Amino acid sequence: MKEQNVPAPDVVVARLPLYLRALNFLTEDGLGVISSSDLAARLGLSAAQIRKDLSHFGDFGKQGSGYNVAYLRNKLREILNLEDIWDVALVGAGDLGHALAHYGGFIGQGFRIRLVFDSNPQKVGRDLGGLTVFSTNVMKEEIRRRQIRIAILAVPAVAAQRVTDDLVEAGVGAILNYAPITLMAPADVHVQYMDPVAHLQHMAFYLK
Amino acid sequence: MKEQNVPAPDVVVARLPLYLRALNFLTEDGLGVISSSDLAARLGLSAAQIRKDLSHFGDFGKQGSGYNVAYLRNKLREILNLEDIWDVALVGAGDLGHALAHYGGFIGQGFRIRLVFDSNPQKVGRDLGGLTVFSTNVMKEEIRRRQIRIAILAVPAVAAQRVTDDLVEAGVGAILNYAPITLMAPADVHVQYMDPVAHLQHMAFYLK
Repeated sequence: MKEQNVPAPDVVVARLPLYLRALNFLTEDGLGVISSSDLAARLGLSAAQIRKDLSHFGDFGKQGSGYNVAYLRNKLREILNLEDIWDVALVGAGDLGHALAHYGGFIGQGFRIRLVFDSNPQKVGRDLGGLTVFSTNVMKEEIRRRQIRIAILAVPAVAAQRVTDDLVEAGVGAILNYAPITLMAPADVHVQYMDPVAHLQHMAFYLK
Repeated sequence: MKEQNVPAPDVVVARLPLYLRALNFLTEDGLGVISSSDLAARLGLSAAQIRKDLSHFGDFGKQGSGYNVAYLRNKLREILNLEDIWDVALVGAGDLGHALAHYGGFIGQGFRIRLVFDSNPQKVGRDLGGLTVFSTNVMKEEIRRRQIRIAILAVPAVAAQRVTDDLVEAGVGAILNYAPITLMAPADVHVQYMDPVAHLQHMAFYLK
């Protein structure tokens, strides 16, 4: 294993979950070893890109013999801090909150929605995917009490910044935001955006 | 206006929707002019980055006087091919399909869900956000007939590749995929991923 000298650029970190997803599928398919070129073909990348990306984190394959799928998968889970399951707070119990609460893709990938909040008194106290919806009035104290570091924001744009401020105060360090608004957060709080419009507009550029 | 000599890198194109979103908010706030540094502060970027990104597409501001918000917004809409409204096919009428069909953020940003499909006979014929859910059996012909170029995929991972093959056959050139699976598509078909797990894993990297 090489020493990790230079921190990996964020664009490289962003690709690791895609590698991990491909390795999960390979594991399901019972494949033990994969070459960087086969892995690259699955991901629409070049083999050189994959080798270069992974070289930031260690030495994972012998030249010519490919990657051991189970080993690389475990190492990626370790690098991405996914060895334990992260509890996640979901804010917003509307249509999208429902879809997220019932989404089967979190568990097994390192995340579990543990708390659900909504500001609508008619939703508070109801069951959502096996969890009781709490009022956003108790959000800060509940998140602090359970030391939750990750939140998913599924609230209307008009409420998103206020909720974000509360999440940051409560100690949340990573926010996945579905509201179509750019959030202001301290530099040490990571925010990522799930904005279908931005993706559609990005692709529309190429459609004429 | 400068000649556009070199095609803009995709990472630059990807930022244009974020600029457009910020300019939409500025317009709502009634702001007529904004400096590149104020725009940068809103987006967590540097002013130099914004100037460099925009320089790929023309000359949008006089040094020192800032950007005319309405003008830059119109130009960005033009660059991104958003002057007309794109009809979009939504495939999948589950929880997520419901959330997307009721999402207010598409209209006004260049997109309108025009057709909804589901493979479940119990969902076919029902109303979803003012549209009748069609069977995926008629998907190819309906998409062809309306010459729809953009689709949103909100189906389970196990069905996503098969639906993608049909969409490509029907002439779709851009797919926004919510299923947690990497899709195979021809090089001229644009695919973007809405995968909450990949974003959460990306952020988890920074959380230890």
